[in-house]
Amino acid sequence: MQHPTNPIPVGVLGATGTVGQRFITLLSTHPWFTIHALGASPRSAGKAYKDAVNWKQVTPIPASVRDIVVKPCVAQEFVECKVVFSGLDADVAGDIEEAFRAADLAVFSNAKNFRRDPNVPLIVPLVNPSHLSIIPQQQSLLSLKKGFIVTNANCSTTGYVIPLYALEKAFGPIEAALVTTMQAISGAGYPGVSSLDILDNVIPYIGGEEEKMEWETLKILGGVAEDDQGAKSFDMHAKQPLRVSASCNRVPVIDGHTECVSIRFARRPPPSPQQVREALAAFTPDAQSLGCPSAPRHAITVHEEPDRPQPRLDRYYQDGAGVSVGRVRQCQVLDIKFVVLANNVSIGAATSSIINAEFAVLKGVVQA
Amino acid sequence: MQHPTNPIPVGVLGATGTVGQRFITLLSTHPWFTIHALGASPRSAGKAYKDAVNWKQVTPIPASVRDIVVKPCVAQEFVECKVVFSGLDADVAGDIEEAFRAADLAVFSNAKNFRRDPNVPLIVPLVNPSHLSIIPQQQSLLSLKKGFIVTNANCSTTGYVIPLYALEKAFGPIEAALVTTMQAISGAGYPGVSSLDILDNVIPYIGGEEEKMEWETLKILGGVAEDDQGAKSFDMHAKQPLRVSASCNRVPVIDGHTECVSIRFARRPPPSPQQVREALAAFTPDAQSLGCPSAPRHAITVHEEPDRPQPRLDRYYQDGAGVSVGRVRQCQVLDIKFVVLANNVSIGAATSSIINAEFAVLKGVVQA
Amino acid sequence: MQHPTNPIPVGVLGATGTVGQRFITLLSTHPWFTIHALGASPRSAGKAYKDAVNWKQVTPIPASVRDIVVKPCVAQEFVECKVVFSGLDADVAGDIEEAFRAADLAVFSNAKNFRRDPNVPLIVPLVNPSHLSIIPQQQSLLSLKKGFIVTNANCSTTGYVIPLYALEKAFGPIEAALVTTMQAISGAGYPGVSSLDILDNVIPYIGGEEEKMEWETLKILGGVAEDDQGAKSFDMHAKQPLRVSASCNRVPVIDGHTECVSIRFARRPPPSPQQVREALAAFTPDAQSLGCPSAPRHAITVHEEPDRPQPRLDRYYQDGAGVSVGRVRQCQVLDIKFVVLANNVSIGAATSSIINAEFAVLKGVVQA
Amino acid sequence: MQHPTNPIPVGVLGATGTVGQRFITLLSTHPWFTIHALGASPRSAGKAYKDAVNWKQVTPIPASVRDIVVKPCVAQEFVECKVVFSGLDADVAGDIEEAFRAADLAVFSNAKNFRRDPNVPLIVPLVNPSHLSIIPQQQSLLSLKKGFIVTNANCSTTGYVIPLYALEKAFGPIEAALVTTMQAISGAGYPGVSSLDILDNVIPYIGGEEEKMEWETLKILGGVAEDDQGAKSFDMHAKQPLRVSASCNRVPVIDGHTECVSIRFARRPPPSPQQVREALAAFTPDAQSLGCPSAPRHAITVHEEPDRPQPRLDRYYQDGAGVSVGRVRQCQVLDIKFVVLANNVSIGAATSSIINAEFAVLKGVVQA
Repeated sequence: MQHPTNPIPVGVLGATGTVGQRFITLLSTHPWFTIHALGASPRSAGKAYKDAVNWKQVTPIPASVRDIVVKPCVAQEFVECKVVFSGLDADVAGDIEEAFRAADLAVFSNAKNFRRDPNVPLIVPLVNPSHLSIIPQQQSLLSLKKGFIVTNANCSTTGYVIPLYALEKAFGPIEAALVTTMQAISGAGYPGVSSLDILDNVIPYIGGEEEKMEWETLKILGGVAEDDQGAKSFDMHAKQPLRVSASCNRVPVIDGHTECVSIRFARRPPPSPQQVREALAAFTPDAQSLGCPSAPRHAITVHEEPDRPQPRLDRYYQDGAGVSVGRVRQCQVLDIKFVVLANNVSIGAATSSIINAEFAVLKGVVQA
Repeated sequence: MQHPTNPIPVGVLGATGTVGQRFITLLSTHPWFTIHALGASPRSAGKAYKDAVNWKQVTPIPASVRDIVVKPCVAQEFVECKVVFSGLDADVAGDIEEAFRAADLAVFSNAKNFRRDPNVPLIVPLVNPSHLSIIPQQQSLLSLKKGFIVTNANCSTTGYVIPLYALEKAFGPIEAALVTTMQAISGAGYPGVSSLDILDNVIPYIGGEEEKMEWETLKILGGVAEDDQGAKSFDMHAKQPLRVSASCNRVPVIDGHTECVSIRFARRPPPSPQQVREALAAFTPDAQSLGCPSAPRHAITVHEEPDRPQPRLDRYYQDGAGVSVGRVRQCQVLDIKFVVLANNVSIGAATSSIINAEFAVLKGVVQA
Repeated sequence: MQHPTNPIPVGVLGATGTVGQRFITLLSTHPWFTIHALGASPRSAGKAYKDAVNWKQVTPIPASVRDIVVKPCVAQEFVECKVVFSGLDADVAGDIEEAFRAADLAVFSNAKNFRRDPNVPLIVPLVNPSHLSIIPQQQSLLSLKKGFIVTNANCSTTGYVIPLYALEKAFGPIEAALVTTMQAISGAGYPGVSSLDILDNVIPYIGGEEEKMEWETLKILGGVAEDDQGAKSFDMHAKQPLRVSASCNRVPVIDGHTECVSIRFARRPPPSPQQVREALAAFTPDAQSLGCPSAPRHAITVHEEPDRPQPRLDRYYQDGAGVSVGRVRQCQVLDIKFVVLANNVSIGAATSSIINAEFAVLKGVVQA
Repeated sequence: MQHPTNPIPVGVLGATGTVGQRFITLLSTHPWFTIHALGASPRSAGKAYKDAVNWKQVTPIPASVRDIVVKPCVAQEFVECKVVFSGLDADVAGDIEEAFRAADLAVFSNAKNFRRDPNVPLIVPLVNPSHLSIIPQQQSLLSLKKGFIVTNANCSTTGYVIPLYALEKAFGPIEAALVTTMQAISGAGYPGVSSLDILDNVIPYIGGEEEKMEWETLKILGGVAEDDQGAKSFDMHAKQPLRVSASCNRVPVIDGHTECVSIRFARRPPPSPQQVREALAAFTPDAQSLGCPSAPRHAITVHEEPDRPQPRLDRYYQDGAGVSVGRVRQCQVLDIKFVVLANNVSIGAATSSIINAEFAVLKGVVQA
């Protein structure tokens, strides 16, 4: 397993959107990947990136990207890209990503379209990059050599499955998880949430979000099963039934999803709050051990202060690549409760796709 | 049970504070009560109210109150008040309220100091005004004729115990309740929360709040027991054990606490979401049937829209005297989950005290 | 000049939009006007109002309006309306309002389309309702008997021309006005400003707004001139040249435009701050003397506190029908400076149209 | 003029406060200065810094500082510091800074106490570091060898005097400047502005701020005069009278003061907007030419986009060490108007003190 020595050309689809801008910001200083092609809607195609984009990041457009001419999202324009990152909106992502895969391109997608596909892994890079093991089957079914689709999870799912996974590794199966989210407006893209809807307000509903969290958790925390014929499938945490109940809220926060989580372990007696804190702090994901350059040094930062994590103070730590957990304490109804904070535009979106791609490069799944 | 015919003189302690301003706003147009005396700290005493107060309400200072000279919080200044409302801060409320009671005055307090007293009722007026039945014992112990203390609950407790009570009435005991709050800044008083702490932020911690919610719920939803000697005590929901787990968060909302609640009933099978909706909508508290003038016409407004209630849109309905419930649906971990919104400065504070006093007048507990 | 005795049937165009909702809220309790017809886009036409609208007001949809079937914005559907209020967006208002006028209907419009028309008055009802005198000429040119268009001003213009007019009445011409606005998000309609653009931010630009303020001020504060042939025209303050410089900013405030104004009078020496305060407080507009029911009792509330007016505390006073002025003091560069607050959705929009119509009824311009 | 080769030990007074935290963040990675001593109130003295401080920065406490034991603010504890930065509150800064100077220490203060002292320079480092020339006179009057006080300006003054100075350099004297500010909450320190006062609000008043802006501008933009006896004094822009009118507002923005500025030049005809843009973009302050390491590479960033600068997007550019100017256009009342954005906690506070100290080191005023 060797780190690549030559720059790996990559493409970004949906390059002018919110997630696309974040991909570009991160990739512009990436040690392995170099931006080779940018794709966007026909309205933007043909323009210099700086003229096509309504740039909303707090750092300026990277100089190396300003004058790249944006291409339409057609596969032949991206054939030289070893990796294609997709920040496309769900309404167009399905067709385009499928076409890119069919053209034997490796697609790492932030869109939801293929997350439920039984041959597409849904990977939170600090949790289940091992699910890349389904890729050969995906390729075989479609007679592809190099092309595939890997998805990452919904931003609200990503945050809390990381500590859940760390705790399952340490203490065995979790039986029930009840999570209430307070999600940032950036999770809805741009223009996204109207200011008239969210200033001085909470919206106790995000369309489809609770279903996504409840379902994605099972696929991510479950294993990959193999039947007698060698056919692989995701077991959806079926061997160790896990019930998940999510309540999703939008709050007037720019970046950073805060989530209050209560869990019940299968193990009796359950671990103590102190044991939970220690297990979380000790958690080292494979992406980190393996040396993915965008993996955080501390996957989970455990706060001892009573009033942390807070999105405004903690969301940019490690450039948002890890998660923060605080207030680990007993739950009077389940076993343990705590607060998680995850930067939805970093580990909750573009950063996850990028670490997934790094992991795939190191594992030889991407043929760099 | 007759409605009073003559104006009932009342006093307000802590008149310049946030809760005091709200008491004054509500009392200035009250059909029974007339403001007779205002008490505040020595710094304010002796000044005209308009000069003592830093008025922060969206309606002007009531004309009838502007020139009332503020008094110190000593009982002899309030002897003519049939009812004394206390909006005092907890650091001074204990001594002052005790002194007022000792002077045979009827105190309705928003402060936390006496909530745990075994002879002081903790009353959410749309839930347990029947707990006034402990008052004779409180008076007897202290050899008082008219004086007593009645407390109302913490603003975050008030919101969600109203639907809990309605559901217990309809479907029998609740076994477990897990509640995550998103609380308005006005709940912390003035100056309260620093803007640097809450703009673009969530603070996942409010000191002492979770303990209050977990404990108060048991006292409010429990009954009043009587032993063989006729001694009364609060049973703390002991006959039907109820476990409560609260996670309290501060969010950048001015008024209105939003709470995500999951509950488990003792009854198997539990009621359906539709049955729950109907029971909530049908709930009529005694304070309403009895004709308390400040009781809301609809104690619980059940929303059918998927994204309601929202604090900014729903908090001022019925001047904040009722609560709103929405998103009643199944919970994958417990039985049923829903969202409650309560106006923390109305039903969560001054309005509760006032309805409690109205109820006490109608029941003859206050000797008007 | 008599107040009408029978209800006057009125229509509302753009009934589902932000301004339309505000028209409906105000008209539902109006002493003279009764809602007869609601018009909206083809997408809404044919639906009950409650199903067509995404209601965003803090009071519920008026019961009398909930089930009215929305009509398309075609004049024949509104022939029984004595007054038609238009809350249409500018992109459709031009054609529709013109067609309604051609059908001999009296249109009071909040849209910008006809504001610059030399035969259409641009009326801030607390300033220049006398400009209704142009209506006969407008009708004559188009051979109409009853139909006409009256516009009201941009929300940011309305706020500050009221004190400007009061000061010109008291002290003679103003030579220069320099105004910097801090405008609420509701001024941009719904969905309007993206929350990602305005949370924790100021946007120092509102497209076209500065030009509107600089131009509208001249038309509103100018007179109606008449040439030898009796032809009337607006003199654009030409006899007393007034230079206006506006800088417009969007701030994270829901309702209420705050404006910092500096002015230079022609008169030397200029009035003192105290004289200015007195003149503002004494100002009584014709709409008030004449008895327009929606006119505020205090056209201009002058604040003495050093830190007022503030949008959150002062915008709902008199239901937003007046304006607040504070901090009247000397300006080191021009003569006098002060702060104005106007509720952009009330006096800055629907309330202005309604008072204009009331005035027109009282003056017999509307044939009720 | 040589860059220092050995680390220069510095102290920070008011180390636990908002400005102190910012000093520490910046100094912890400074190429010349090394934190030697931290001073705070008696309540904090004796504690490890990490235990004394309520850290509110978005980056963690620098590791090198966490365990430094905080000292009381007495000069003998700081004798080894070549430079002492003061982030003290005004209520204590006067006495402490005077005592430190009397102990022959070089104090660079962010407090207002000595700004009006006729022998203390008030320096915006990108404007008038030449005012350090008054230091020998300050020392001589007090018989000091190394000790002195240098102040930097109020955060709202700093932002707009930089472009004013650049324009005076290019086009000669400015006669009048009218500035309306929209200031961030961090300018008021911590806890500072109550969230109840500023959420969904504008406060059109900041105590003393307008006077500070109007006065400080004259001292900063004026020269240092010398009489026949060689006595030096600040000429307060007296030779070229400049009238300044400021209107100061607080808005719900965390960091970054936005200011709308209109100016009138003495020169007739005045420069065009394009000439102004070019002069601003070309401006190179002495602190930059001289090589102060904390000086920004671009002192003034001129934006061409119509809607910039915006605090949320532009305040962290160059770590807030420069200012942004946009919307340069004609003013109908004065000559030219534009928008300035300055990061009030960087160039508006700690960064200014640090560049002032760097400049003083390079000029030999600090004896490093």
